[in-house]
Amino acid sequence: MKLKNDLLLRTLAGEKVERPPVWLMRQAGRILPEYRAIRSSLSGFVELVTTPDLAAEVTVQPVDRLDVDAAIIFSDILVIPECMGLHYELIEKKGPFFPKVLESGSDISKLIEGKSAADKLEYVYDAISITKKKLEQRVPLIGFAGAPWTLMCYMIEGQGSKTFSKAKSFLYREPALAHVLLEKLTLTIIEYLKNKIQAGVDVVQVFDSWAGVLNKELYSEFCIPYLKRIRESITDVPVILFSKGAYFSLEDIAACAPNALGIDWTMTPSVVRNQVGSDIVLQGNMDPCNLYASKEKITKEVHTISNAFGQNHIFNLGHGVYPDTPLENVIHFVESVKAIKY
Amino acid sequence: MKLKNDLLLRTLAGEKVERPPVWLMRQAGRILPEYRAIRSSLSGFVELVTTPDLAAEVTVQPVDRLDVDAAIIFSDILVIPECMGLHYELIEKKGPFFPKVLESGSDISKLIEGKSAADKLEYVYDAISITKKKLEQRVPLIGFAGAPWTLMCYMIEGQGSKTFSKAKSFLYREPALAHVLLEKLTLTIIEYLKNKIQAGVDVVQVFDSWAGVLNKELYSEFCIPYLKRIRESITDVPVILFSKGAYFSLEDIAACAPNALGIDWTMTPSVVRNQVGSDIVLQGNMDPCNLYASKEKITKEVHTISNAFGQNHIFNLGHGVYPDTPLENVIHFVESVKAIKY
Repeated sequence: MKLKNDLLLRTLAGEKVERPPVWLMRQAGRILPEYRAIRSSLSGFVELVTTPDLAAEVTVQPVDRLDVDAAIIFSDILVIPECMGLHYELIEKKGPFFPKVLESGSDISKLIEGKSAADKLEYVYDAISITKKKLEQRVPLIGFAGAPWTLMCYMIEGQGSKTFSKAKSFLYREPALAHVLLEKLTLTIIEYLKNKIQAGVDVVQVFDSWAGVLNKELYSEFCIPYLKRIRESITDVPVILFSKGAYFSLEDIAACAPNALGIDWTMTPSVVRNQVGSDIVLQGNMDPCNLYASKEKITKEVHTISNAFGQNHIFNLGHGVYPDTPLENVIHFVESVKAIKY
Repeated sequence: MKLKNDLLLRTLAGEKVERPPVWLMRQAGRILPEYRAIRSSLSGFVELVTTPDLAAEVTVQPVDRLDVDAAIIFSDILVIPECMGLHYELIEKKGPFFPKVLESGSDISKLIEGKSAADKLEYVYDAISITKKKLEQRVPLIGFAGAPWTLMCYMIEGQGSKTFSKAKSFLYREPALAHVLLEKLTLTIIEYLKNKIQAGVDVVQVFDSWAGVLNKELYSEFCIPYLKRIRESITDVPVILFSKGAYFSLEDIAACAPNALGIDWTMTPSVVRNQVGSDIVLQGNMDPCNLYASKEKITKEVHTISNAFGQNHIFNLGHGVYPDTPLENVIHFVESVKAIKY
């Protein structure tokens, strides 16, 4: 059945469109009072992620409230380590925490991988089916996964870090073992994304959130080959690759031939266009902090950014929207983008 | 009196030298057992910073132990907010904490600035005088300051942050007030560096540690003009500017005409050379995580990096050395650099 609003899909197909589609990373989240109401009734974030009806409900909320051009399934990148056998918790105001981390080759060899791991995440696929019904074909639904390197970061480090120096030094000390782990992650991510597509998502995005702690050389060796395999394995829906902070590897990521390349707010649109050409669709990259400014400034910046990117652009922030962003400013941001006429 | 080892100064003067000079950011610190011995006998980090004899002692330790080509005075960038009237503490394993932060124009207007603020930091200048005596002209002594933006980050945010979104949104919401604060910081930093030079430092380095959370536009407006003024105010000794993560503004920073430009490990030497030319001295940029690798790999990487930079290069890591780096690897790193023959 055809989507009522297929602007995102037409843009991802490289068609000439009337204006850029717009959605926000973390649009299903704390910026919405209706999200906070559901969240405060629960024991924690993990309960929300693992309860399909509720995950579906918060996924649809920003479509209702913000009138964005896409929904993104509410979930967590760390369900992949979980289904591979590495349990994690989310500690309020601290973030993810793994009671046990990977330290040796035997820890890595014990991890389940591929389809048998991915098939365990029924709650995600159920949330997608329910969301698709609730959306009633209004907008496309985006599914996502963390990239192998970013997941490895948490599995080695056990928690967030400013430097991820434990995970990074693992690349230097144990490159062969790192490749074994990244391979297992890649196989699981591919099956996970295929299951998500089976369940109904129209687009997938891969988040390499900690790409920026590496450099071109490390990214070429430990990330690009896996991103390429993930990208090549997904043939039924468009693929967006977003490697936050990986300004040093943009050409290499573009060479993986994603349907769109996400870029963060530190990247200068004209510089990126020079590096990767005008044909590739770019997604981003307004500074999330700009949404704390006045409405006039937000409108102005939306126009500046749209002019800098030109066609082949999906409007988004360069990072997830911050939880304390004034909701009226987020609404104004979306309206400003939707008022653009190419 | 002439320095016995003036390799760093000759390199900074643009002379053709026999090999790159080498020192490490955070070389005076937890990597050295003799540092940890002193540190554990004290109530805290701030006591070490404010006790000139001890600060001098730990400054000289890496010269004795690692045989590096420069000492850098042991201190803290946050002495500047302190002397301007904004008190801070260092909380063990958490980092800096300001009980009171800047919230309004009146908070900013209450800050002391310039010479009357800088002159309060006698303990730093005393530590420099003592260090110079202890060094006995073996190597040059580097003095440093935090850049205005980085100091503003802490003064608004009150502590470390992954995003510094409070400080950044201040730039969007209150640009005029931000400029007032940055101006006051700039005047204080200039007087502080002049006092340091008076006390005996041979080189100064300005650390813009949180440059990387901005972008080219914000950096041009809120950072470059102040870095330029600081640079132009320092005429007696060479100036190194290190804006961590500011890959987007390298040309603008180079245009401030520092004697050297520090670059972090994410930057590709050949790309940077293309952007800023081969005449400017570059400092950096080995990944600190590389020092967890085998000695063979360290040697190999030292050669790769040296070849990539060519002449006009000060060897350093692209970030402060991590506290748990094996000391023997640090020593091997320094030896490998010193074995280079141009």
